[in-house]
Amino acid sequence: MSKRLYIQDVATRDGFQIEASFVPTEDKIALIDRLSHTGLAKIEVTSFTSPKAIPNLRDAEEVMRGIARVPGVEYTVLVPNVRGCERALSCEVDEINLVMSASDTHGLANLRMTPEQSLAQFAEIIEVTRGSGVFINASLSTTFGCPFEGDVPETRVYELTERLLEIGVQGVTLCDTTGMADPAQVERICRESLQRWPEAVFTAHFHNTRGMGLANALAALNAGIDRFDASLGGLGGCPYAPGASGNICTEDLVHMFQRMGLDTGVNLDALLEAAATLPGLIGHEVPGAILKAGKSDRRYPKPKWMQEAGL
Amino acid sequence: MSKRLYIQDVATRDGFQIEASFVPTEDKIALIDRLSHTGLAKIEVTSFTSPKAIPNLRDAEEVMRGIARVPGVEYTVLVPNVRGCERALSCEVDEINLVMSASDTHGLANLRMTPEQSLAQFAEIIEVTRGSGVFINASLSTTFGCPFEGDVPETRVYELTERLLEIGVQGVTLCDTTGMADPAQVERICRESLQRWPEAVFTAHFHNTRGMGLANALAALNAGIDRFDASLGGLGGCPYAPGASGNICTEDLVHMFQRMGLDTGVNLDALLEAAATLPGLIGHEVPGAILKAGKSDRRYPKPKWMQEAGL
Repeated sequence: MSKRLYIQDVATRDGFQIEASFVPTEDKIALIDRLSHTGLAKIEVTSFTSPKAIPNLRDAEEVMRGIARVPGVEYTVLVPNVRGCERALSCEVDEINLVMSASDTHGLANLRMTPEQSLAQFAEIIEVTRGSGVFINASLSTTFGCPFEGDVPETRVYELTERLLEIGVQGVTLCDTTGMADPAQVERICRESLQRWPEAVFTAHFHNTRGMGLANALAALNAGIDRFDASLGGLGGCPYAPGASGNICTEDLVHMFQRMGLDTGVNLDALLEAAATLPGLIGHEVPGAILKAGKSDRRYPKPKWMQEAGL
Repeated sequence: MSKRLYIQDVATRDGFQIEASFVPTEDKIALIDRLSHTGLAKIEVTSFTSPKAIPNLRDAEEVMRGIARVPGVEYTVLVPNVRGCERALSCEVDEINLVMSASDTHGLANLRMTPEQSLAQFAEIIEVTRGSGVFINASLSTTFGCPFEGDVPETRVYELTERLLEIGVQGVTLCDTTGMADPAQVERICRESLQRWPEAVFTAHFHNTRGMGLANALAALNAGIDRFDASLGGLGGCPYAPGASGNICTEDLVHMFQRMGLDTGVNLDALLEAAATLPGLIGHEVPGAILKAGKSDRRYPKPKWMQEAGL
């Protein structure tokens, strides 16, 4: 049970991008600087997308250049195309995260690209990174199901993983983009992926849309996954299920792993303090459970009648 | 993966008892009658407590006598004392559920009895049931931790289980009363309990207070547990964590197990229809995720631009 786990926060990218209001640049920087000292392995800082496409992240360069990078923490950014990659490289990111879908319809709907088109574009982007030393990760959306097409054949997931690794991708994030995954499927796909490509770096990325987020994380852990994406406060959402939960919550995930006796390297109290600042930044409550209920080791005073009776 | 699982709903007892308003007797009966046709293995109908202690369940006899019992479904009731047991027996329940705590402080705070006092009272109650053929279950609260004392020694849990079985209890529910359990602990305690007492009937009872409810259910399943308490809509709460989730949600649990290819015997659509009536009965939204997000096989229409472009 002493295996080291790596927790990667995506709130400032996956979370902030869908908020109704723009989080001021200095607040983003302050939050990331705070997170950098919690023991997180990686922070997805922002996205080098067109400011028109995602106005909330229009300050990508300012944020990436403004943060105080802490040695040992990896700073990654989402990169949608060659232009975004050039912007990211100019900020000396540690990693770029490419995104594609495992299903045609979701790829077209979300990125206006089929998986084939995404792969072709990734090859161009990777060409641009040559010699930079930047780590190349690819997030494979709809790995566990597509909200338009339904089941995605597992053979398709493995075929796309193989092709990603062939073109120079070093890490693959298996993404349950809309919260369709179940623990049996997660354990099967994660186990198979780790077995087929032992040298690749796999991350599991779950949403809690259907309440199974931490159960799926447990299943991935059982399969041997040691890297997990999660979002501070449980920020992020599912555009296809308004009102439903989005990404699994970082502090809830860390809490579960710590209670299980596993080493996440994260200071949970520091993480909770950072999470507690979120409602002030985004103007609404967040889904995280530990923020509401406290950690499992929280103690309550005895009822007054017991105290008075000396019990 | 074809092992049969047994799903037991506690919403009309564990859920309704803490609602702000009284659910009319005829509505309780109608809901239970509806649930009786969903394939649930057991329904915890009500509690034969003093009407003063729990006014919401003051109609215990009327409800128990008013429902149309379906063969194959077990109807259980909570029984706090000999008087409650006599009332329950007069209604010809299938099972009585006794409740005690594994920790002294929670026992005193919640039941005004230490575990020793509870055991003595259980012996009296069981004496009253002799010859009735009623099944005796005991719910062991704070099995996975006490909100006052913290960790409960696992040896204490096994000692109390042993004593419960010695005095004639046939089934033991391992209860995570305030949502403190973690999956590693759950798997350990469930596995050990099943191994020590292969002839006893064990149920796992989890709360989702800290987001780990379904992860803990998965851990219990992995340990060999096949009976699960859950609450329709996720009704029920944690008195020690206002605003936090309570019992795990029946339809979310069934949905997870079904997606995993497991046989719960439950018609999920019928269960969801029953859950959808809850807000009208209790006057507020419920925590269940599937009610909000839909099942994982829910399909969404393609974006309009794709439809128009014939994609």
